[in-house]
Amino acid sequence: MTQLGLIGLGKMGGNMRDRVRAAGIEVVGYDRNPEVTDVESVEQLVASLAAPRTVWVMVPAGEITASVVADLAERLEPGDLVIDGGNSRFTEDATHAALLAERGIRFLDVGVSGGVWGLENGYGLMVGGETTDVERTMPIFDALRPEGPREEGFVHAGGVGAGHYVKMVHNGIEYGLMQAYAEGFELLEKSPIVSDVAGSFKAWQRGTVIRSWLLDLMVRALDADDDLSDIEGYVEDSGEGRWTVEEAIANAVPLPVISAALFARFESRQDDSPAMKAVAALRNQFGGHAVKSAE
Amino acid sequence: MTQLGLIGLGKMGGNMRDRVRAAGIEVVGYDRNPEVTDVESVEQLVASLAAPRTVWVMVPAGEITASVVADLAERLEPGDLVIDGGNSRFTEDATHAALLAERGIRFLDVGVSGGVWGLENGYGLMVGGETTDVERTMPIFDALRPEGPREEGFVHAGGVGAGHYVKMVHNGIEYGLMQAYAEGFELLEKSPIVSDVAGSFKAWQRGTVIRSWLLDLMVRALDADDDLSDIEGYVEDSGEGRWTVEEAIANAVPLPVISAALFARFESRQDDSPAMKAVAALRNQFGGHAVKSAE
Amino acid sequence: MTQLGLIGLGKMGGNMRDRVRAAGIEVVGYDRNPEVTDVESVEQLVASLAAPRTVWVMVPAGEITASVVADLAERLEPGDLVIDGGNSRFTEDATHAALLAERGIRFLDVGVSGGVWGLENGYGLMVGGETTDVERTMPIFDALRPEGPREEGFVHAGGVGAGHYVKMVHNGIEYGLMQAYAEGFELLEKSPIVSDVAGSFKAWQRGTVIRSWLLDLMVRALDADDDLSDIEGYVEDSGEGRWTVEEAIANAVPLPVISAALFARFESRQDDSPAMKAVAALRNQFGGHAVKSAE
Amino acid sequence: MTQLGLIGLGKMGGNMRDRVRAAGIEVVGYDRNPEVTDVESVEQLVASLAAPRTVWVMVPAGEITASVVADLAERLEPGDLVIDGGNSRFTEDATHAALLAERGIRFLDVGVSGGVWGLENGYGLMVGGETTDVERTMPIFDALRPEGPREEGFVHAGGVGAGHYVKMVHNGIEYGLMQAYAEGFELLEKSPIVSDVAGSFKAWQRGTVIRSWLLDLMVRALDADDDLSDIEGYVEDSGEGRWTVEEAIANAVPLPVISAALFARFESRQDDSPAMKAVAALRNQFGGHAVKSAE
Repeated sequence: MTQLGLIGLGKMGGNMRDRVRAAGIEVVGYDRNPEVTDVESVEQLVASLAAPRTVWVMVPAGEITASVVADLAERLEPGDLVIDGGNSRFTEDATHAALLAERGIRFLDVGVSGGVWGLENGYGLMVGGETTDVERTMPIFDALRPEGPREEGFVHAGGVGAGHYVKMVHNGIEYGLMQAYAEGFELLEKSPIVSDVAGSFKAWQRGTVIRSWLLDLMVRALDADDDLSDIEGYVEDSGEGRWTVEEAIANAVPLPVISAALFARFESRQDDSPAMKAVAALRNQFGGHAVKSAE
Repeated sequence: MTQLGLIGLGKMGGNMRDRVRAAGIEVVGYDRNPEVTDVESVEQLVASLAAPRTVWVMVPAGEITASVVADLAERLEPGDLVIDGGNSRFTEDATHAALLAERGIRFLDVGVSGGVWGLENGYGLMVGGETTDVERTMPIFDALRPEGPREEGFVHAGGVGAGHYVKMVHNGIEYGLMQAYAEGFELLEKSPIVSDVAGSFKAWQRGTVIRSWLLDLMVRALDADDDLSDIEGYVEDSGEGRWTVEEAIANAVPLPVISAALFARFESRQDDSPAMKAVAALRNQFGGHAVKSAE
Repeated sequence: MTQLGLIGLGKMGGNMRDRVRAAGIEVVGYDRNPEVTDVESVEQLVASLAAPRTVWVMVPAGEITASVVADLAERLEPGDLVIDGGNSRFTEDATHAALLAERGIRFLDVGVSGGVWGLENGYGLMVGGETTDVERTMPIFDALRPEGPREEGFVHAGGVGAGHYVKMVHNGIEYGLMQAYAEGFELLEKSPIVSDVAGSFKAWQRGTVIRSWLLDLMVRALDADDDLSDIEGYVEDSGEGRWTVEEAIANAVPLPVISAALFARFESRQDDSPAMKAVAALRNQFGGHAVKSAE
Repeated sequence: MTQLGLIGLGKMGGNMRDRVRAAGIEVVGYDRNPEVTDVESVEQLVASLAAPRTVWVMVPAGEITASVVADLAERLEPGDLVIDGGNSRFTEDATHAALLAERGIRFLDVGVSGGVWGLENGYGLMVGGETTDVERTMPIFDALRPEGPREEGFVHAGGVGAGHYVKMVHNGIEYGLMQAYAEGFELLEKSPIVSDVAGSFKAWQRGTVIRSWLLDLMVRALDADDDLSDIEGYVEDSGEGRWTVEEAIANAVPLPVISAALFARFESRQDDSPAMKAVAALRNQFGGHAVKSAE
């Protein structure tokens, strides 16, 4: 019988546990939060799974993922498999795979898309690693991915790192898509002749070239607040957009749209722009144009 | 019984005639092309419709649309209605409405989205004009729009011009969306570790945040030619993208993503870039960096 | 003896009167402001000049310039010459030239650069119109332009409109240059290891590739306020940047840098960004990411 | 008497040797090229200098600089000083400084601007390191920097790394400036009414807001080839532009202009754009728009 160990039961991991269980697969979940965890420790988690084990790591990228992987390298046995399903930078994957390989432990990296909707709709899965490891994990992937043909919600994109690479590009594209809708929203809001902006977005949902899931979500947001007056235009970024632009630079790929979307987020978080202070100062210097005094 | 006069039976108009007829509405179509026209002249078209008439114009934007509208102003009667469903700039609409109003003829502007797929899927419709005119045309709109709730494929967005305005913004967004996917494609193609680019796009179709109809079309294109090697990276633009940026400038709306997508098209059509000649010349001047000689 | 009529004695026109007089040329200036004007009306100005007259118009672009030109068309005689030295859009020039030509009055358009420094340094002059008109005005141009070879501060760039066209492009370039320095300023300000930002700008004044007059002005601004803390990052735009991007669009010229500089100004004037509200709303919808509430 | 050891006598280093010698300072230069070197080996170079020595490294950034620094760490004595004057990434400096510090050897990083003109005009110098090391090297810096006040061609910008950081930002700004002029050039070239493009650039040299050394170089280039028809629009990049954008991303600084200038260079080197193939394919899919076949 298929079993899965799952470390990290937050917004994503918790839903994933439910979806995999709903497919009839046994899941042992561990989280530091005692209210959601199934076992009290990683040690217990390992003990409660039969070898060869599959342990899916779903924790924040960076140091936390690295420490969980290092811990698993100590606790698991040869032939076990670790899956990093978090938003790790693809460059981490080779390091983790090598560390685990020293102990004979296998590794897959998986990009997971779907957000809070994944429990219901299934998760888009992008996988990197070796084919035999992918094949043995297929029941888990089939439980997590959306209904429909496997290849429309799942890809084995290449060797170690390829899953996170494809997810990184996915998120870079996402930045561009969101910014495109957002620019359109602002232009319609400013238009002197369009009186039903929310209705226009709603009407784009069927038949048009720009229909999409993000558009559906935009309609949901406008249904709740039709001019978004309750929301501040302040947008965080979580890493993948930056990595996408950095990877483009490393490969000499022009990325005007995705980089513009990233920079728009940086700007959204500034109270005042040092750059625009400089432009204001220059205009004042050459043309005597008035400047506004900072308070 | 509802009747429709339809002028322009090209790629869009021809399909629209079929879709409206399939809904049981009588359509009299006119086109200069004798192989597709129903009648021999606009005069005949007008004569074959009972007053009050509805005549939908579906011809190229600009001078051709203007001349058809002017011709209809001469031939139609008070109480008749002209609909411009082409890709006219919204600024034309007030002019056409005023010309027709002098004769007591009504006017609606309609942005139509859906391309060659509209016959089967229905067309997204964005309408500008007065409510009474919109209401009397509703059977036609219902025939053209996609299945499902009316408000998900149809909007009465505002007064005269609002339909084309919303369609203009729709197309501007479309430019940004396409460029975002395209940048992601290029980055994946250049990636040293992703071996299945087409499979990655395919896998994004279900469950992911970036699933969309444009993504589905990208998958179709990659199914036919998995690295797009048969296609040249040469992209025309048809006006709406330019108008969107111009309208943003007029309203002081920043549009970094949509403008970048527009400029990428301009660049795609250049054999050599005068700007980059200048940069190459400057680098040579200050640093002695080699330049490539133009052939 | 050379005479000049000058309408508009503001920040630019007043200094230009001084500079032309300093070259020994008689100037009769008119301004609505009684404290600076030489004569009480345009009528008096015309009466005090011997035919053939040269009248330089230095008033705000748009309606004011148009009304002054129309007024001069009524008051001047065949053979007289009107010069529009303001920041008119080049598309206005043909209209003004045609209006004046009906009365046998000549027309030149002149782009004038130099700002508040022009009195001392001279003004860069870009001229459009016919050669005979340019030649008869050369003593005025020589008085206004900087010391040094004529061709380094003056160009007869083409027919009517060419002067304002070249000035428009000059200002578009200026937007890009200012933004480039400004971005560098912001990056240095944020740097964890550069402790002397103002000193770095100062040190770029001699020997470096990026030395320029704008850099000198940046140094002046930083001398007065070394982190620009007294200035708000709020930047107006006066038209030429918009026209430059619009003209680029009309000619399918990619303009990523100049357009980005223009959009940065638009952004600098927004209290909150509707576009970024939309991005924040979308992230909240798909990922449950927190949004900030607008106050 | 002041002495300088100089490793690397290429386009930059060779001229720098001449300029320092012209100031009456003894320079011992080493280069692998026997036609330009003063000594046969680094060993000889070290032997020919009296302690405490100053050795300026002027070789390509990256592995070559790293190996020269490592070699000097072996050969020099406590109290000697190594200066990296090449285009190293600022992140390298701490590593080099630490390696040398283990042997008691001092380190400065210096960004050098001025290109092939530096021999005649002097070099702009941006220095990082400790004050005592900067002070002992001042005679060399004074020999290299341009005439005029020291602070207008020299800055001690901060600790180790600050010199290369300021130079990196200098070059990032340079990318933006060049692209701004280049976009203006292209727009003037396409203008239907400007007949003297080269003359317009020439006329911007005095009095205008955009006068600069880069503009002077543009005039030189246009003097030689007034429409740049002999030059291909193909532009390399040498690293600093990429690092500038990467550093901006690391510090969440929006950099729309400098990044656009970088991407324009990437595009200039592509025979065909994979991204634009994708856009062409998408347009064909939804609208039946014709695509061009790649040959």
